[in-house]
Amino acid sequence: MCCTSPELIYVHSIVESVGEGVTELAPGDHVLPVFTGECKECPHCKSAESNMCDLLRINTDRGVMIGDGKSRFSIDGKPIYHFVGTSTFSEYTVMHVGCVAKINPEAPLDKVCVLSCGISTGLGASINVAKPPKGSTVAIFGLGAVGLAAAEGARIAGASRIIGVDLNASRFEEARKFGCTEFVNPKDHTKPVQQVLAEMTNGGVDRSVECTGNVNAMIQAFECVHDGWGVAVLVGVPHKDAEFKTHPMNFLNERTLKGTFFGNFKPRTDLPNVVEMYMRKELEVEKFITHSVPFSEINKAFDLMAKGEGIRCIIRMEN
Amino acid sequence: MCCTSPELIYVHSIVESVGEGVTELAPGDHVLPVFTGECKECPHCKSAESNMCDLLRINTDRGVMIGDGKSRFSIDGKPIYHFVGTSTFSEYTVMHVGCVAKINPEAPLDKVCVLSCGISTGLGASINVAKPPKGSTVAIFGLGAVGLAAAEGARIAGASRIIGVDLNASRFEEARKFGCTEFVNPKDHTKPVQQVLAEMTNGGVDRSVECTGNVNAMIQAFECVHDGWGVAVLVGVPHKDAEFKTHPMNFLNERTLKGTFFGNFKPRTDLPNVVEMYMRKELEVEKFITHSVPFSEINKAFDLMAKGEGIRCIIRMEN
Repeated sequence: MCCTSPELIYVHSIVESVGEGVTELAPGDHVLPVFTGECKECPHCKSAESNMCDLLRINTDRGVMIGDGKSRFSIDGKPIYHFVGTSTFSEYTVMHVGCVAKINPEAPLDKVCVLSCGISTGLGASINVAKPPKGSTVAIFGLGAVGLAAAEGARIAGASRIIGVDLNASRFEEARKFGCTEFVNPKDHTKPVQQVLAEMTNGGVDRSVECTGNVNAMIQAFECVHDGWGVAVLVGVPHKDAEFKTHPMNFLNERTLKGTFFGNFKPRTDLPNVVEMYMRKELEVEKFITHSVPFSEINKAFDLMAKGEGIRCIIRMEN
Repeated sequence: MCCTSPELIYVHSIVESVGEGVTELAPGDHVLPVFTGECKECPHCKSAESNMCDLLRINTDRGVMIGDGKSRFSIDGKPIYHFVGTSTFSEYTVMHVGCVAKINPEAPLDKVCVLSCGISTGLGASINVAKPPKGSTVAIFGLGAVGLAAAEGARIAGASRIIGVDLNASRFEEARKFGCTEFVNPKDHTKPVQQVLAEMTNGGVDRSVECTGNVNAMIQAFECVHDGWGVAVLVGVPHKDAEFKTHPMNFLNERTLKGTFFGNFKPRTDLPNVVEMYMRKELEVEKFITHSVPFSEINKAFDLMAKGEGIRCIIRMEN
């Protein structure tokens, strides 16, 4: 599950037709639809450092196509609005070309569909942003799908110790499959978790990735990195009233704090390469997929998400 | 002035003798004494990202040599304690070899002495840490010596707009010599200064460097950088009770906050190269030196520092 919706395979992740002026895609192309886009023209798209496209950045309220402000769906002449730019709970949809990443046609769509959102977010948070050096120690806060993908990214980057931090110990065993080597449950300690981690790691972890959205976990993830070179990356979406607080000396001691959106991946430019990582067997996608339901049972997928069961549930667009 | 002391030329910035086992230096070498050291053996010295030497990091309280815990100064048999590892208010001093940077013997000691502390701190904060891309826009908070050196660093790095921010408008004209192209006095605005800067720069500056130590300026310096790629660097030393606060979404929108100590320069490895920057006329040191007094008038130097007059005052060790 991810963001506001369970992931969807729509077996029609295949281009049916293209609008006027679209030259990058042709009918029959295999694609991943993405909730955030890449126009390739704006300052963010032109910056090597950002993927927050000015035109096609996530917008949960728009509900219409960006070009003419109209919906492409209707029932009995009444408009049905679009959902997060993709509207993928549908056999056919219409999307802005900037939200469509063309991928290797040999990639199995019922696997790589999970790369459209949270898995790439966590993976990119590690690989693109935290960039743990080989042999380094990384703490992952929160072992849901995004956190497990961040652990997978740390594993791929060559981290030698990956410490999973979660209040729910039932997640620890599963997390070993994603590269976690050690675990800390803050409930098991009376000391602040940043102190527990510093004691385990001779002064602090080299990198941390925060995937819960809880502001206290964000503060802990920052304060647990080693002085001199530690980098903490925030991924989880905070409460609107949250306030990040720390003593500024924690920065002066040469720590870095940064945040990321969608793992800093530019969807059209970078997602095809993430698919290739899977095709080369560097990235293991199957282990993220714990459930699969037909579209008629979509509410089961939501129930699983609400209960925090499993990692990703695929919804099959069956006839 | 810098840290706890005015800069000092001691005309004897020339090695008089070396202790047993010291092979890197020989009598006659020209050197810069530095308040922080580089042992070359500890994890911080071995990290490419840090200069916070575990052994020789700044210690204002030690007062004795690190090897045997004793002072090398005495009057009438009574020990006189060392000062911040250097004790340079003296014609002769004894220092740990890790706090001595060997430099080009042709460099004028009465100029490059200012590179031992604040000037390098500000310069390195820009060049080594903020790393403004060519053509970028940089905000400098605080136009004292360190801030002016940060502006000089941004100028050298090729920033095209350098916006000086200070509550004291009398500093603005002088700051043009250091590369500042525009100025903002927060007192002239009713809006928060981060908003003023965002409006001047189409959404925020590319880099900011905070050189006041005031925690509100730190928050402003962070919040004024552009989403997507903005990097803010903290240099000023905060009050012990200061608290840095911001909404975590400011990080999630792909901003980076980091701090630096002594501009991330490793003293023995890097300061000789900073001296070479001066020798090649890339770095202009003379403009930082606004006053000079003989040692007998050292209190004048302290008065100038306390009043915030001038930039750097050289104390001449005259016979």
